[in-house]
Amino acid sequence: MTFDAAASGIDRRALLRGLALLPAVCGALGSTAALAQGTPGAALPSWHDGAAKQAILDFVRATTDQGSAKFVPPEDRIAAFDQDGTLWVEHPLYSQVVYCLDRVPAVVAQKPELKTVEPFKTVLSGNREAMAKLSPHDLETILAATLTGLSVEAFEAAAGRWLATAKHPRWNRLYTELVYQPMLEVLRYFRANGYKTYIVSGGGQDFVRSYSQRVYGIPPEQVIGTAGGTRFGYDKNGKPFLTKEPKLLLNDDKAGKPEGIHLMIGRPPRAAFGNSDGDREMLEYTGAGAGARLMMLVLHDDAQREYAYGPARGLPATKVGAFTPALDAEAKQNGWTVISMKNDWTRVFPFD
Amino acid sequence: MTFDAAASGIDRRALLRGLALLPAVCGALGSTAALAQGTPGAALPSWHDGAAKQAILDFVRATTDQGSAKFVPPEDRIAAFDQDGTLWVEHPLYSQVVYCLDRVPAVVAQKPELKTVEPFKTVLSGNREAMAKLSPHDLETILAATLTGLSVEAFEAAAGRWLATAKHPRWNRLYTELVYQPMLEVLRYFRANGYKTYIVSGGGQDFVRSYSQRVYGIPPEQVIGTAGGTRFGYDKNGKPFLTKEPKLLLNDDKAGKPEGIHLMIGRPPRAAFGNSDGDREMLEYTGAGAGARLMMLVLHDDAQREYAYGPARGLPATKVGAFTPALDAEAKQNGWTVISMKNDWTRVFPFD
Repeated sequence: MTFDAAASGIDRRALLRGLALLPAVCGALGSTAALAQGTPGAALPSWHDGAAKQAILDFVRATTDQGSAKFVPPEDRIAAFDQDGTLWVEHPLYSQVVYCLDRVPAVVAQKPELKTVEPFKTVLSGNREAMAKLSPHDLETILAATLTGLSVEAFEAAAGRWLATAKHPRWNRLYTELVYQPMLEVLRYFRANGYKTYIVSGGGQDFVRSYSQRVYGIPPEQVIGTAGGTRFGYDKNGKPFLTKEPKLLLNDDKAGKPEGIHLMIGRPPRAAFGNSDGDREMLEYTGAGAGARLMMLVLHDDAQREYAYGPARGLPATKVGAFTPALDAEAKQNGWTVISMKNDWTRVFPFD
Repeated sequence: MTFDAAASGIDRRALLRGLALLPAVCGALGSTAALAQGTPGAALPSWHDGAAKQAILDFVRATTDQGSAKFVPPEDRIAAFDQDGTLWVEHPLYSQVVYCLDRVPAVVAQKPELKTVEPFKTVLSGNREAMAKLSPHDLETILAATLTGLSVEAFEAAAGRWLATAKHPRWNRLYTELVYQPMLEVLRYFRANGYKTYIVSGGGQDFVRSYSQRVYGIPPEQVIGTAGGTRFGYDKNGKPFLTKEPKLLLNDDKAGKPEGIHLMIGRPPRAAFGNSDGDREMLEYTGAGAGARLMMLVLHDDAQREYAYGPARGLPATKVGAFTPALDAEAKQNGWTVISMKNDWTRVFPFD
């Protein structure tokens, strides 16, 4: 079997709702029009006027105005964005986990001995009830088997093929189309004002990097994600290549986010956007720096256009994503701005 | 005692010649004048005309000329530079090792129980003969004790104080003054032509980042070095901070250089500059990519103006740096260009 939903007709939503406990990782971008500072109203066309939009406009204006006490020199203009649930859809399951499940048949074809070994046997069976019961440890085994042991080039090719064909079960669109148009506008607005935009994701660094330029306009070196080691070696012709190793270097979630930012950037960002408990430490770290800082959280309160989940503010708890009451309280206490998907965004997707 | 050479009057050269087995890290930069493509002859004023200068000019021109078959799009213009022996002096000992030895008194002041424990006892004794016999393991112990266990901010402050005062024993100048003027010109020339310049150093990532912008015009996020983990936590006032941990994430030397480049950049650079066996894999990895590539090696053959060591080409072997006959042969076979410090550079330092 294959997990390509479009091809197989499997109801992946019901299946995947039961999995989804691991950090993971997809997007769609338009043209990069220059966004002149002089026309801020035009910078965020998919945003309703309100506190969230105003917070972004005010921050960017103040930090790029040489006459402002909040001015930030160009070399310090760094803005960090979580991906899953902040830049694109994370429900019902992180896209990278779907990718890994879809890769199982190819991995088993290479290593037939896995055919009768769990958890691969269950994934191959197509038994959705059994798959929904896979443990976090089972999923880790699947991620390790499907993301490592191959060359960097082979991984990029496999990820590229999947991203070009696999579709989200609800919208029947490529995962990279399910990016939030208002956030693409924020990325462009920051960049047009001299900010380097970074993705800081619990998803796999190599996975996100394989489409970050095309989808978000963010080059690979500005993607920080959960990262494993690689091993340098030579092929039979003496040509050097890197093999992806099952050795975790950075678990880029929760406290791992500021740790990853230090490893990759060397200083806190000036602005940070997230949507869940996994982003809390990144926002705290960003806010602890001197000078102007902007911290924002996307609240998924729009079941009609996307999804509604918290569990803060009476929204239901789900297995993927966690905007908890404690996070909500901390946001209020620290002056972090909450973005209401329902009230702050005029549209959600580029195709809307 | 202190290891500040200028203050102590200790002959550090004799002392340090016996140490120096670890990868480590310092630099001086002038203004960043725009280097128009139209005036390449003016781009590298401290270079004699010759094969090395021509290789740089030809590569940059071809890769930035839209009409050239070797054209490289701006987002792929990445150039990587080793630091020790490539951008600044590495003799008689890597500057960062000197820094670590100098830090021992401060570490012992914090942890008096180390006063009678080796190798700290020997370093504190000032007995130069005994210090010259410290083993690589002793030095590792000293590096771990002096580079970890403190906050990122405390480390940056300590490194900053040292860099502002410690002087090289031969020139009696700050380490950051002992950068190679011709290489500063190469960095600027690449940047003026749309290349992102990276340092890829065996030295400590946080150490090099503390002065990279000021000295080389390279921002912290474009410094890849030997990197340890950090741990996120909160101080007694609840303010978040990162502590440097004695956990090695990346040994950025030899095969670790391409592995570090993949971790931090996500693809091979288009150009790579080195000077020793520690840079071999980085140059191989750079050369293995498709399209135009430039690989160059600095040969230290100038005892009068700097140092002369190989052991290739009849130059003496030293404990720091190793341009071996095998590296020389590989350079010839692969078309890597060797830069003769003596013949290719009209001057070595900005103060010459």
